[in-house]
Amino acid sequence: MNMELANRLPSLKLVVFDFDGVFTDNAVYVNQEGVESVRCHRSDGLGLSRIRKCGIETIIISTETNPVVLARAEKLKMEALHGIEEKGSALSAEVEKRGLSWDQVAFVGNDINDIPCLERVGLPVVVADAYDEVRPLAKLILKRKGGEGAVREFCDLIWNARKGKKETNNE
Amino acid sequence: MNMELANRLPSLKLVVFDFDGVFTDNAVYVNQEGVESVRCHRSDGLGLSRIRKCGIETIIISTETNPVVLARAEKLKMEALHGIEEKGSALSAEVEKRGLSWDQVAFVGNDINDIPCLERVGLPVVVADAYDEVRPLAKLILKRKGGEGAVREFCDLIWNARKGKKETNNE
Amino acid sequence: MNMELANRLPSLKLVVFDFDGVFTDNAVYVNQEGVESVRCHRSDGLGLSRIRKCGIETIIISTETNPVVLARAEKLKMEALHGIEEKGSALSAEVEKRGLSWDQVAFVGNDINDIPCLERVGLPVVVADAYDEVRPLAKLILKRKGGEGAVREFCDLIWNARKGKKETNNE
Amino acid sequence: MNMELANRLPSLKLVVFDFDGVFTDNAVYVNQEGVESVRCHRSDGLGLSRIRKCGIETIIISTETNPVVLARAEKLKMEALHGIEEKGSALSAEVEKRGLSWDQVAFVGNDINDIPCLERVGLPVVVADAYDEVRPLAKLILKRKGGEGAVREFCDLIWNARKGKKETNNE
Repeated sequence: MNMELANRLPSLKLVVFDFDGVFTDNAVYVNQEGVESVRCHRSDGLGLSRIRKCGIETIIISTETNPVVLARAEKLKMEALHGIEEKGSALSAEVEKRGLSWDQVAFVGNDINDIPCLERVGLPVVVADAYDEVRPLAKLILKRKGGEGAVREFCDLIWNARKGKKETNNE
Repeated sequence: MNMELANRLPSLKLVVFDFDGVFTDNAVYVNQEGVESVRCHRSDGLGLSRIRKCGIETIIISTETNPVVLARAEKLKMEALHGIEEKGSALSAEVEKRGLSWDQVAFVGNDINDIPCLERVGLPVVVADAYDEVRPLAKLILKRKGGEGAVREFCDLIWNARKGKKETNNE
Repeated sequence: MNMELANRLPSLKLVVFDFDGVFTDNAVYVNQEGVESVRCHRSDGLGLSRIRKCGIETIIISTETNPVVLARAEKLKMEALHGIEEKGSALSAEVEKRGLSWDQVAFVGNDINDIPCLERVGLPVVVADAYDEVRPLAKLILKRKGGEGAVREFCDLIWNARKGKKETNNE
Repeated sequence: MNMELANRLPSLKLVVFDFDGVFTDNAVYVNQEGVESVRCHRSDGLGLSRIRKCGIETIIISTETNPVVLARAEKLKMEALHGIEEKGSALSAEVEKRGLSWDQVAFVGNDINDIPCLERVGLPVVVADAYDEVRPLAKLILKRKGGEGAVREFCDLIWNARKGKKETNNE
């Protein structure tokens, strides 16, 4: 892990996630009545609950209009904004509301509509299979693909960085 | 990109897609009551909306009788003809109705029932995992498989070609 | 293609298929109410309809009790026996009922409960990802996996073999 | 197979499984109404029924609260405890209830919440794609991934080991 990442991870206060392509493999299952489903990864829940115990807040911001985003967020006990056309402004509002500086915020995305968010935050992150246009914006490219435990991987990095921090504090 | 492709992309007025194997991975999910679902890719929507903003029309023509085709098309705000036995004639009717020449039309397919369409259009395209029988008919073989962002990939090619065109026009 | 296979394909009158692991990838999707779904391949339908036009009969014989087998069979316009504990006896009854010899019958399977059928028929076939125990029984191992177009692949082999036969007859 | 494994397999009386990531690929499918589905492998059923015929008991212990665990367990005719926060204590209670020693128990898991169980049992087992943190605890790492026949693979190992035992006994 490079030094910048090692420095940023322990001071995070808010982690914001895109939904499709991050919590999912960017697929949508559609049935003949138009009902949508998505494929998520069970392992994400354990990672999210661990970082929340450290006092880190987690939100989903998605352009997708279908309520499937809310269904998954509810299971994960996360706040979610969906149907958001301008993700950048929505993110700014959330950061301001909490009185945070951009250095305390990470965003995890995968596609071009995440660019305004990736450009704003102190720690921009993309999944392993993110689109080429957004990869250069990331300070961290995860090893796992969206929907294959990418969320868990990032939570584990934060968890381990904070553990190290605490151990150092205790010395 | 070869010269012919570079020339054809900017002049497209109509892009016609097969459904199964192009918007999907050619799988169908069947439940015990016979209800069908398909697995599509979220990224396709963004690509389609960008080329429509350039004034390009997009249609789906499918032999599949199940209304799942219409359910996905509705979400993507696309016109769709389904249950079409003779895809070639249906395509001809659509082209004629719009007063277009074949040079202004692309078709994206994957299987042998797409042959009549691939033979007619100026720009025949197939997905990465198209059947061997249809590959020789294509002037463009996409890098992505059906249901894995193949539609988005083709839309991005058109978008980038037109951007180049505009920039040239503005000079 | 070896000589024996080339000889057997054109004389087939009945093709019998296992369901799970042949028409599907051997997965079952279960929802929280216990409703089951399976993942099939759209391409199979086209292959099956072509060989039926040649007068070849097609049946599914499955041990699975869930009616999802029947739901898929109905879409494919195939006869299906499901919940069959003794596949071998069920197959024998079907062959006898039609007055066929075993040389005119192929069976496509993937797992150990297919052994009695694979041992009986003139042309035993398994999918690419069949279990090790059954592979030695097969005279033909398909290139495609179950649920990934294996049924279509076998139908295409029969279709091409019969086309050759007709062309020879016409000379 | 190493000697310890060869010795332990024939004396097993109870096999306990985690659910998500063992019976499934650790994915969860969520629809827009919040209904959850999981993807299991048909082949597991045949393996489980064979070892039960040998008098081995099989249970699922899962932290997951969704009843989809029970839906799959019912189909497989297995007892299942779900929504279990402390898997270790739950496992101890089951072993005590049956009057077994830890040498007669195997546990199959994939993630860190399985650690208390993997540490207790005589034969700790993990699937091919288990998390790094739990792999060192396993005496057996299966070749197959969760949801891809890992349960079947372990059942087949037990079945084959007991067959050998019986043959030896008969001599």
